[in-house]
Amino acid sequence: MPDVKNQRKKTVRAALVIIGDEILSGRTKDANLNYLANWLGELGITLSEVRVVADDKDAVVRAVNDCRPRYDYVFTTGGIGPTHDDITAQCIAAAFNVPLEVNPEAQRILESYHGEGDVNKARMRMARVPSGATLIDNPVSAAPGFQMDNVFVLAGIPVVMQAMLEKLRDRLEGGAIVTSKSLTVHAGESNIAALLTAVQDRHEALSVGSYPFFRLSKGGEGRVGTCLVFRGVDGGDIDAAIDETKFALEQISVEYEDGEPLLPHHKKQG
Amino acid sequence: MPDVKNQRKKTVRAALVIIGDEILSGRTKDANLNYLANWLGELGITLSEVRVVADDKDAVVRAVNDCRPRYDYVFTTGGIGPTHDDITAQCIAAAFNVPLEVNPEAQRILESYHGEGDVNKARMRMARVPSGATLIDNPVSAAPGFQMDNVFVLAGIPVVMQAMLEKLRDRLEGGAIVTSKSLTVHAGESNIAALLTAVQDRHEALSVGSYPFFRLSKGGEGRVGTCLVFRGVDGGDIDAAIDETKFALEQISVEYEDGEPLLPHHKKQG
Repeated sequence: MPDVKNQRKKTVRAALVIIGDEILSGRTKDANLNYLANWLGELGITLSEVRVVADDKDAVVRAVNDCRPRYDYVFTTGGIGPTHDDITAQCIAAAFNVPLEVNPEAQRILESYHGEGDVNKARMRMARVPSGATLIDNPVSAAPGFQMDNVFVLAGIPVVMQAMLEKLRDRLEGGAIVTSKSLTVHAGESNIAALLTAVQDRHEALSVGSYPFFRLSKGGEGRVGTCLVFRGVDGGDIDAAIDETKFALEQISVEYEDGEPLLPHHKKQG
Repeated sequence: MPDVKNQRKKTVRAALVIIGDEILSGRTKDANLNYLANWLGELGITLSEVRVVADDKDAVVRAVNDCRPRYDYVFTTGGIGPTHDDITAQCIAAAFNVPLEVNPEAQRILESYHGEGDVNKARMRMARVPSGATLIDNPVSAAPGFQMDNVFVLAGIPVVMQAMLEKLRDRLEGGAIVTSKSLTVHAGESNIAALLTAVQDRHEALSVGSYPFFRLSKGGEGRVGTCLVFRGVDGGDIDAAIDETKFALEQISVEYEDGEPLLPHHKKQG
């Protein structure tokens, strides 16, 4: 009997709330968005929205409460350290309208890592989580993250955040896995726009993305092109759409090749 | 007579809405957030929130309409090209509940750049803006952005987006300019947390950020430290807070030095 359940897996969607004055001020470049997007993608979870908010209680509570009813999972990064500007735990408690309380397991972890005498008042801040939360192990620097309902609260330091993700992987249920294939087309976007609209209309379940690039030849002359990205859960549908696109390009004598453009200038935003 | 107006400039806040499936899928790393944050900062405008949303009409309209009453300025990046996945203009028209219409000036710009015969139907898509919008020049590739009330619609390609910002600079009114100074402290965050809380409480107009770092010595041993960032509009207040912090650190025999830590590992998120 074929595995019908696997063939009809639902779409699972997630949001990320990045809590960080230092990202908004331009001091630091975020690295967690891109990592999480790829990590979730491999599990069949689509990152559907990201918000970057200041270290401000109202802003954090609003973002979390906007996102948690709308997405299957919400991740937060940042603000779980021991200092006054680490306010994420109290924000999540406020978002869920529950008290913040010392978690005995978190206290034990911190005492074990730092030595009982060295768990000062500041470190004990990191043992406080919203009432009802379950911990997320931190194999790098001990201080745990936590899960509250569908909200996963992670560290902001990328290496710690990444380690925490591995520890919570088993708590996530993925959906259908989205795959993608690219096609490099040697024509400007405008010249293939009508053709692409037709292909997109014939393959509604796919998303066909069009990203212009400029490739400089050795002689310094620019060559304009477009990178097409076909994304979807049905690999056969992707292959069919690419075949149709190639066939249509041949009719108007436009060259193409499989894959992404070779030079680093190809990655457009927007 | 002293310039009282300049001394009491208001806080001016902005939001950025990044429209881009390719950022959310992890295919492309955004570069516009960090650039805009620094560019706005120099004008005395604080980037207060960022959202990354999919190439989806409902998602874009919701994000723009959430942000535009809440902030002085809203910037969008991405989705203003000629293909089917470029939907930003129609989303902004929907957000403002006005029709999309061909802008004669945009049409003239595109005809002049591409040659009248080469302005195909796809390119003409880029001449359509919401009724009432004013154009934003694009000195790189002609197709203009536009302004609708307090919303500035920019290209996603970083070099184009950056050029558009220069063209709209005169339309923005900045507020008090936020400056910052850093102090590198050779102690873990937990050990200086209480001290920092006291300094923050004494300087409520500043934001005192605390960012742990790990510096590896040549021998391979890690040295833990904390980078403190004092941000605010009053340089004298920043200097006073740093002086107090240094004085307090001396009382507990903790070493420090002005500026950021020297090694590249110092930049924490969160």
